Parts: sequence; structure tokens; C-alpha cells
Amino acid sequence: MHLFDQSTALKRVSGEAPDIRFEGEASEHFKNMIGPYGGWSAAVLAKGLVEAAGPEMELVSITTDFLAGAREGPITLDVACDRGGKNTQFWNASLTAQGDKSPSNRAMGILSRRRDTLAWTEGSRPDAPPPEDCDRANLPMAWSRTVEMRPTQSPPFGTGKTRTDNLSWIRLEPDRPLDAVGLVALADTPTPRLFFVTGKPEMIATVSMTVYLHASPDDYAAVGADYMLIETHAARGGRGFYDQHARIWSRDGRLLATTQQIVWYKTTNEE
Amino acid sequence: MHLFDQSTALKRVSGEAPDIRFEGEASEHFKNMIGPYGGWSAAVLAKGLVEAAGPEMELVSITTDFLAGAREGPITLDVACDRGGKNTQFWNASLTAQGDKSPSNRAMGILSRRRDTLAWTEGSRPDAPPPEDCDRANLPMAWSRTVEMRPTQSPPFGTGKTRTDNLSWIRLEPDRPLDAVGLVALADTPTPRLFFVTGKPEMIATVSMTVYLHASPDDYAAVGADYMLIETHAARGGRGFYDQHARIWSRDGRLLATTQQIVWYKTTNEE
Repeated sequence: MHLFDQSTALKRVSGEAPDIRFEGEASEHFKNMIGPYGGWSAAVLAKGLVEAAGPEMELVSITTDFLAGAREGPITLDVACDRGGKNTQFWNASLTAQGDKSPSNRAMGILSRRRDTLAWTEGSRPDAPPPEDCDRANLPMAWSRTVEMRPTQSPPFGTGKTRTDNLSWIRLEPDRPLDAVGLVALADTPTPRLFFVTGKPEMIATVSMTVYLHASPDDYAAVGADYMLIETHAARGGRGFYDQHARIWSRDGRLLATTQQIVWYKTTNEE
Repeated sequence: MHLFDQSTALKRVSGEAPDIRFEGEASEHFKNMIGPYGGWSAAVLAKGLVEAAGPEMELVSITTDFLAGAREGPITLDVACDRGGKNTQFWNASLTAQGDKSPSNRAMGILSRRRDTLAWTEGSRPDAPPPEDCDRANLPMAWSRTVEMRPTQSPPFGTGKTRTDNLSWIRLEPDRPLDAVGLVALADTPTPRLFFVTGKPEMIATVSMTVYLHASPDDYAAVGADYMLIETHAARGGRGFYDQHARIWSRDGRLLATTQQIVWYKTTNEE
């Protein structure tokens, strides 16, 4: 089993839809600076929703809030359905480290039995050198052994930058076929925008991330385990928070997901 | 009292922080085609969070899901705090029409005691003719008497368009000083992207909207009751859902909010 699937495995321990409890584990393989990699937490929440809603329902939208850093070790994931229509269902989820009194993460997710409609894509995949020509980012955190990132340019950090748009090839490594849960995990790969502005790593914490999933089963099959290109920009930082927006494209130009997050930081002008 | 404030007024009926119940009313003044204008629902949820958290906490982020169209008449708004740190608090809210068994709207919101940090804005306000030179959009729905919209060009609807980016001046009308709750209401003003693609109104329903609030107290004071420019684009539509992304700028170029939503539709290729 792929390390990503091992690390997001869930065991249903009680309940029937619409109220289900799962148990899992925050493993050392997705350790970040403090707590697990945010993409792991978001993926576990997404996986609980997908497993609870059943195979005919696809994840359309998920918003994950990061209330506190989860600890390593066993976790409990509670999911429930707030409104369960035949074609569109609204679920919630919360992830709690066993022994903690309040959740480390919570989410609202929308799942749908999708059907054919008029379809269009706005814009197109940005030009970029192929991933084979880009160097892999080597980060000291455990999760970056499983989440591969190849920025299309050398680290573009620069003091005082106020345009942080950049591109990176991403995938789960080694080869793992793409699905909605993998896409949610990869939505958290962009280098924090603040690092571009100040030119160095800073203390940051994502507080909320939203992912809209556009990929169809055909798109997932076409991507397989190939690299995807994530195109990221931001808008404003100030008074402790900045935002970040990204699009995830397949190599052949399919728009797979759009995502945004808002991030806490404390860097002041004096530093 | 401004009609917007009348229509979003809440009465605290029970509870103390962190679990509070409010009552209000879905009035005829914010009627849309089906149920109330989404910006009204989002604003009521935001207002409950702001009133519950208290005056020192500012709304940083809110995600509102639209589970069902609320009916006109009395509503109940329940808010609770999932994690209440001194500087950052994570709240949830749900809005239920009195007599209904399940909520029509739910939200997760993050509030913070904000403090000075390094600050920057990426990009700048797009060029646009001043609002005084743009015609007001006259829509048949009640809410458009209070939510003023002045697109910067004639309705740019066109069959088969796959670039739907456009600009519109917006404000609450008549003069009402801007605040976070007003900004959340205005985040739902963009003309649905699908209308641009097909060239005509279609049945649509926003299922989830997220707003990140960047405006500082100085920014709110500087805007006052003036027009703001909303810059909107989209990314992909297909299999029943499309996304929409927008930035709200002050006339003098302050980035006040970024927002995104995902929208259900059923238009097929055959129509």
C-alpha cells in the first residue's frame, strides 16, 4: 500500500450514515515543523467524507479549518450529514487527537452525484519547463518525502516582493494514481507566500483552506501518477493574515482543482 | 435604521458565549428568485458570529454553505465556538427557518484580535470608468433595491464565452458605512458566470461561498458609503458545478476582500 494511503487509512468503528466515527493515526511520515502537514489533515477529513457518503457521491467542495496542531498518534474522525439530498449532500467532519478535548481540525464538505452538463474551462495551463527539467525541492520535513514538489524556477525568494505568483510541479511519490483525496492533499503544497515577501522561512499557520474539485473520473484516469502543475498567487497580507490562491492543472491542460487558503503569521516590519 | 441593518437584525434569545441563539427574520426586502439573496444569508451568519465574539474580535474568514432556500419569515440562528483562543477563535453558525427541521445555511467562521504585522498588497485595482459613468443594473428581485450594482460595461453576455472576467461597482444603497457584515453581503453580487457562457439567465444555486476579509478599520472608514469595484473571474464548469473568484477593491485601490464560491447548475449542451 502506498505510504500516503497507509497514513490516511481509516477504520470505521461505530455508527451508520449519517453519523459515523472513524479511527486513524497521525503518523510520523507526515510530520511538519509543528504537527502534521496540513495537506494530510485535509486529506483525512476528505477521506472520511468520501467513505461515509459512498462510491456514487463525488467530493465537490471542502473547507478545512486548522484549529490546533494535531499530535502524533491515534486520532478520532467524526463525520455527520447536515443535509442529505439524493444528488447533493452537505457533510461535516472533525478530527481529534485521542485524549484531546477539542478537535484539531474541522471541515464542511459537499458531495454530489454528478451528471453531464454544459462544460467549459477558462484560461489555460501556464507554460512551464517540463518537470523532468526542474529540480526537486528538498525540505527537511518528513512529509516532503511523499509529497514531491519541483518548482519551475530556483527558489524565487526576494526581500520585499509584492508579487508572489509562481509555478511548481507536484505529485504523490512514488507513483500513486490521482483521486480526490490525493488532490486535496496536494492543494497544500504551495510555498507560503510570506516566504517570498521576506526572503526566508517564517512562522506561519494555515487557519482555513478550501478546495473545489473539478476533475472528472476521466481526468483522474488521464493524470494517473503523473506530475501536475500548481499555479499560485496571493492578494493581500496584513494585521496577521494573508491569503493564497491556486489552480492545479494536469500536464495536458485539464483544470483539476482550484484552492485558496488564509494563513496566520506574526512577522512585523521590524524583523 | 438602514434597510440592510433592519433586515439582518438579530435578537439574542438565549445562551451565553460560547453557545448562543439569536432570532431574526428573512424579510421580503431581500427576496431573490427562490428564497432570500445569498448575500443576505451570508451576512446574517457573519453578523451572528461578530455579535457573539464581541467587539475586539474581527471576522477574518467565513465559509457559508447553502443547504436549502430559506423561507420568508422568522429564523433561528445558532452560533457556537469550537475553539476559543485569546487571539484566534473558530466559530460555527447555522440558520434555520422557524418550523424547519434542518438548517438552510451553515457556516464556519474565524475571528481574530488582529495586530500590526508586515503588510503588502499584490496587484492593483483594475482600471475602470468611474461608477458615476456606469448604468445601474435593474434586476427584478427585491434585494437589488438595497444592493446596488453598476457593471462597467453593458451586459457582456455572449453564447459560448469561456472567459467571464468582468468588473462591477457595488455598494449598499442608500448610503451605509461599510463594515465586515456589509462586505460579506456584497461578496455575492457578481452576475453568475454561467449567464455569460450561455448568454441568458439560467437556474443556478450557490452551494458554498468563502470570504476572506482584509479590510482594516482605517479601510472601512476610508470607504464609508462609497462604491467598491468587484473584479470577478472563473475557472471551470462541468458536471453540474462551476467556481467563481472575486476581489473587492475600494475606489482608491485598497484590497478589502477576496471571495470564491462554487455554484450548482443543470444547463446541458442540448439547451
